[in-house]
Amino acid sequence: MANILYIGDFSKWKNSFKYSYPITVRFSETDAFGHVNNTIAFVYFEEGRINYFKDIGLSEEWFSKKGKLIPVTADLQCDYKKQVYFDENIEVSVKINMIGKTSVDLHYMITNSVGEVCMTGRGKMVQVSRATGVATPWSESSRKLLEANHFSID
Amino acid sequence: MANILYIGDFSKWKNSFKYSYPITVRFSETDAFGHVNNTIAFVYFEEGRINYFKDIGLSEEWFSKKGKLIPVTADLQCDYKKQVYFDENIEVSVKINMIGKTSVDLHYMITNSVGEVCMTGRGKMVQVSRATGVATPWSESSRKLLEANHFSID
Amino acid sequence: MANILYIGDFSKWKNSFKYSYPITVRFSETDAFGHVNNTIAFVYFEEGRINYFKDIGLSEEWFSKKGKLIPVTADLQCDYKKQVYFDENIEVSVKINMIGKTSVDLHYMITNSVGEVCMTGRGKMVQVSRATGVATPWSESSRKLLEANHFSID
Amino acid sequence: MANILYIGDFSKWKNSFKYSYPITVRFSETDAFGHVNNTIAFVYFEEGRINYFKDIGLSEEWFSKKGKLIPVTADLQCDYKKQVYFDENIEVSVKINMIGKTSVDLHYMITNSVGEVCMTGRGKMVQVSRATGVATPWSESSRKLLEANHFSID
Repeated sequence: MANILYIGDFSKWKNSFKYSYPITVRFSETDAFGHVNNTIAFVYFEEGRINYFKDIGLSEEWFSKKGKLIPVTADLQCDYKKQVYFDENIEVSVKINMIGKTSVDLHYMITNSVGEVCMTGRGKMVQVSRATGVATPWSESSRKLLEANHFSID
Repeated sequence: MANILYIGDFSKWKNSFKYSYPITVRFSETDAFGHVNNTIAFVYFEEGRINYFKDIGLSEEWFSKKGKLIPVTADLQCDYKKQVYFDENIEVSVKINMIGKTSVDLHYMITNSVGEVCMTGRGKMVQVSRATGVATPWSESSRKLLEANHFSID
Repeated sequence: MANILYIGDFSKWKNSFKYSYPITVRFSETDAFGHVNNTIAFVYFEEGRINYFKDIGLSEEWFSKKGKLIPVTADLQCDYKKQVYFDENIEVSVKINMIGKTSVDLHYMITNSVGEVCMTGRGKMVQVSRATGVATPWSESSRKLLEANHFSID
Repeated sequence: MANILYIGDFSKWKNSFKYSYPITVRFSETDAFGHVNNTIAFVYFEEGRINYFKDIGLSEEWFSKKGKLIPVTADLQCDYKKQVYFDENIEVSVKINMIGKTSVDLHYMITNSVGEVCMTGRGKMVQVSRATGVATPWSESSRKLLEANHFSID
């Protein structure tokens, strides 16, 4: 798997995740080829990402009805390594790769119940104003929280 | 098909639709049984319903960002008559069954490219306040529009 | 809620469910009105239904790749009682209402974390041949299993 | 947009697409932030990709029930440039970037009704055996077809 640009040493990369969120594959997520449809990887990434932010206690009020800031995806990518099927118990692991002024770059890894890596991915989230769409810097407390959860691979 | 409570004479019922919206089945809408997943029928109903309202010129500003009223589903049902597959060209027909003070009861019919009925359905939409969720009467102009598009089966 | 045809005494009906499956609402399941999109109710019903069948030990090999029989939805309906929002912890309760020769009629109830009923529903599943689509009777063991899990409301 | 690795000269890149597929944004594709959910970009890419293959006449029997070969996604990525909203008429443009022995690398561009680029993307599809998952070379006729539709940017 050396050909994935966002992954250096695969073994180190794999072992550097400290958070994972469990998901059981729904039947409605499969397609006529019998496996999980490719688009669902990004549903799992979003599910993992939001629960990761909740887990580390990120306090920006993104999901409150009156919140003025929202997180948007700047980019996303997924490498498909192994098919995933209905009813499999998978784990979506998430970690911080880089912290920007208004953004955070996250890495993702989906593993199956025997620990095989099925999908890897990454993507940048940017915090923007709900009203104007303009990128908005992290609050001091959010930045500290992100930094406290940013672990070096080495 | 006499056993569907919301349909009297099936032939008359089928012929009384005056509006239909074309949809081509997406691959991501199929499931591992090879056909369209049952949940997608309601995606098609919503797609047909919204385009029907647009077609008749319903002027309530439901989908404007600052609109104070929104339509919500009070109930929905679907009878599955024939499997639908990837890449089929289907039509979602929609008609008004009954008009209430704050609601409208719609009937749905999905047919395939050779005119076979694949799914039938119905459901009541209610207009509510976005802020409070309270049911809100149709404006005079909307009621007139709905009535002008409410055709008797006989 | 007396006006829902498939529910007699609501309190008795509500209390007669013995199985429920927990789900946390995903952000991708919401829509621009801020709540869960109406079509997702049926995703939750399918999720609850499949896990219910697994829970009672139904042995038909519906989801095996080489299984000759599959379950299909004959009809489905949902009554929306209360809006559901992102990140809510809900429960999908499922029970058997009636057992047919080739089918089973299921009732559904979705409750939120404070026990309020948000959605109710029902629908008939039919066991059919994967190859021909013809309705196929329950095996003796499956019928016994269904009957053993069919509890009278009274 | 110089920072997107798969795009060289953006203007040349944009103008080199010869195929596009029209899509109208569904309400069920939006999320509680009011715009199209990030995961839907990949639904649009799949919709564009499949229709592109159909358009150029690719003859592999991927979607036939008895077809022995299927296309799977090796990787996918999307860069989000501009929010997309309910009811927008968008175009998904697709083109061949590179042809491999068993795979094809595609580029994607989603534009809105005034021609603004909302999303760009790329991804590799691999043709595999449905039974074994092993990558399988293009037939001679498919390769010729792909090559005939592979246009240089310059």
